[in-house]
Amino acid sequence: MVNDTFLKACRLQPARHTPVWLMRQAGRYMKEYMAIREKHSFLEMCRTPEIACEVTLQPVKAFELDAAIIFADILLPLPGMGIQLEFAKNEGPVIKNPVRSAKDIAAIRVTNPVDDVPYLLKAIKMVKAELNGRIPLIGFSGAPFTLASYIIEGEGSKNYVHTKSLMYSDPAAWDALMNKITDVIIVYLNAQIEAGAETVQLFDSWAGCLGPEDYRRFALPYTKKVIESVNKGVPFINFSANTGTYLDIVKEAGGDVTGVDWRVRLDEAWKTIGYERGIQGNLDPAVLFAPVKEIRRRVKEILDMAGGRPGHIFNLGHGIILGTPVDGVRAVVDCVHELSTR
Amino acid sequence: MVNDTFLKACRLQPARHTPVWLMRQAGRYMKEYMAIREKHSFLEMCRTPEIACEVTLQPVKAFELDAAIIFADILLPLPGMGIQLEFAKNEGPVIKNPVRSAKDIAAIRVTNPVDDVPYLLKAIKMVKAELNGRIPLIGFSGAPFTLASYIIEGEGSKNYVHTKSLMYSDPAAWDALMNKITDVIIVYLNAQIEAGAETVQLFDSWAGCLGPEDYRRFALPYTKKVIESVNKGVPFINFSANTGTYLDIVKEAGGDVTGVDWRVRLDEAWKTIGYERGIQGNLDPAVLFAPVKEIRRRVKEILDMAGGRPGHIFNLGHGIILGTPVDGVRAVVDCVHELSTR
Repeated sequence: MVNDTFLKACRLQPARHTPVWLMRQAGRYMKEYMAIREKHSFLEMCRTPEIACEVTLQPVKAFELDAAIIFADILLPLPGMGIQLEFAKNEGPVIKNPVRSAKDIAAIRVTNPVDDVPYLLKAIKMVKAELNGRIPLIGFSGAPFTLASYIIEGEGSKNYVHTKSLMYSDPAAWDALMNKITDVIIVYLNAQIEAGAETVQLFDSWAGCLGPEDYRRFALPYTKKVIESVNKGVPFINFSANTGTYLDIVKEAGGDVTGVDWRVRLDEAWKTIGYERGIQGNLDPAVLFAPVKEIRRRVKEILDMAGGRPGHIFNLGHGIILGTPVDGVRAVVDCVHELSTR
Repeated sequence: MVNDTFLKACRLQPARHTPVWLMRQAGRYMKEYMAIREKHSFLEMCRTPEIACEVTLQPVKAFELDAAIIFADILLPLPGMGIQLEFAKNEGPVIKNPVRSAKDIAAIRVTNPVDDVPYLLKAIKMVKAELNGRIPLIGFSGAPFTLASYIIEGEGSKNYVHTKSLMYSDPAAWDALMNKITDVIIVYLNAQIEAGAETVQLFDSWAGCLGPEDYRRFALPYTKKVIESVNKGVPFINFSANTGTYLDIVKEAGGDVTGVDWRVRLDEAWKTIGYERGIQGNLDPAVLFAPVKEIRRRVKEILDMAGGRPGHIFNLGHGIILGTPVDGVRAVVDCVHELSTR
């Protein structure tokens, strides 16, 4: 690996600078992306290896990023499971047959990604060939709770009433659903690793709707099982959003690196998680809209909180926001390198 | 006051049971409310004292609540300030002229609520007469940050990009806006107290989009000024949502009682806030959709975390969700009383 700063940080080894990549770094804020998006639907882009490969590489060519992440969506495994997924124009994903009952859960299929998402595995192989060892490639999946809540709600949700109602009223049905999803995620991530992903990340984007005890009971065991079951030796990043009030519970899930959002102070979060583990984060994505001077100040603040300790991967606290200025992205990446080079 | 359990808790005095009220306790989950809502727009209901009074009393008649809260909306002061507010049918509030520049901010008027929202003050007097000293009445306002973010975004927001861009790029303009809003809130709350409200609460519903240092710099000073400037002797509740990772900063705002959401453990939150202050919360509003047995278990869990210490006001961690079963509301209120009676 020509630039191994990211993999070194995953393993808590000192590197020549703090590595940086940005969640959702391939996306609509780039004109190169939009040029392709105008001609293809989002799902077409995900399902065409040549396009997924090209889009994965766009930010890597534009900025000095220390890792690439395969262009995909956390909901890609759903259709194979029997969930009817659609991306409405300019809106989020919508599921036509949301899962609400034990019968719905029984109908869910556990898929084999080699048959189900061959395009994703092919895209990973193509990206690897293009990167040619320059920087590592990250594979990813939605975490069990986040996928379950999507499947149950059928769309973005404010209060997660259907999800929580199922959890509270029928814990056995919840467990059955989560076990199926967990099994899918394990084979899905292992297939990405076999195709060449050098690191994998779980995105638990909606875990933060849960209080601490609900997270412990209804989300943690399944995330933990995924992490324990994925191929050893490949760094695992466990990112969850809005769970900063119970990182002491989140850390029980394991993983080499824990990703945190911007609502926590990085130094306190790392102390809670434990220094035997790496930390990823945690700039507020809205800061990329700020003047460069302010971006610089914020980047420095986070680097200072990390204190130069090996094991910090610089990232945002959540994905890049639509409309983010390209200059803001560049400022973050360049500042991290400039201010952290040892 | 016939039932003074709520006011005693605000003052950290022992009471015969833990008082309970529920944020958004007057609302669409009640058929009595819907019967009126079918005939009047939401703003009409707020602006007609007879209706606001009736709706305020509906939950008080249906459940054994220990406090009433005046039926109103946090955005009611906006039109008087020159902000064009509309409630779209079945959707949230929309502002037709969102504030985005120093010029927009200069045009905002600081209003006198006696002239601007006379209907609200009249409704408070009517409710007081109807309650006749049975339970206390709570007045309220949006907190400065939450009102500012509404005024700037113009509608509900996911990422608060406009709000944060203004904060980061023009802190002086932000300060000017927040000072105007703060001045409005102070006179607005004092007018409610003069009309008869025995307690006031700030709702900082959107503060949780801020990281700790942004909250400290861009929200805290103004909330603190409101709390310091409102009539002494009247209990003040400072509720903010999704700020559980920095309650040590939130507590600096002051107030007799701090309201917390369900993402924190009540015992840990109270320890952070300090026992010289009361705490309000913090049941996940989604739990009201659960079977009564589960509701009961959750209520007990929170009461146990409060440990019978005077100064706990039982509430949800956020407002009642649309569609909440009336039986769930009743179960919470009755369980709190049954399990906490001393």
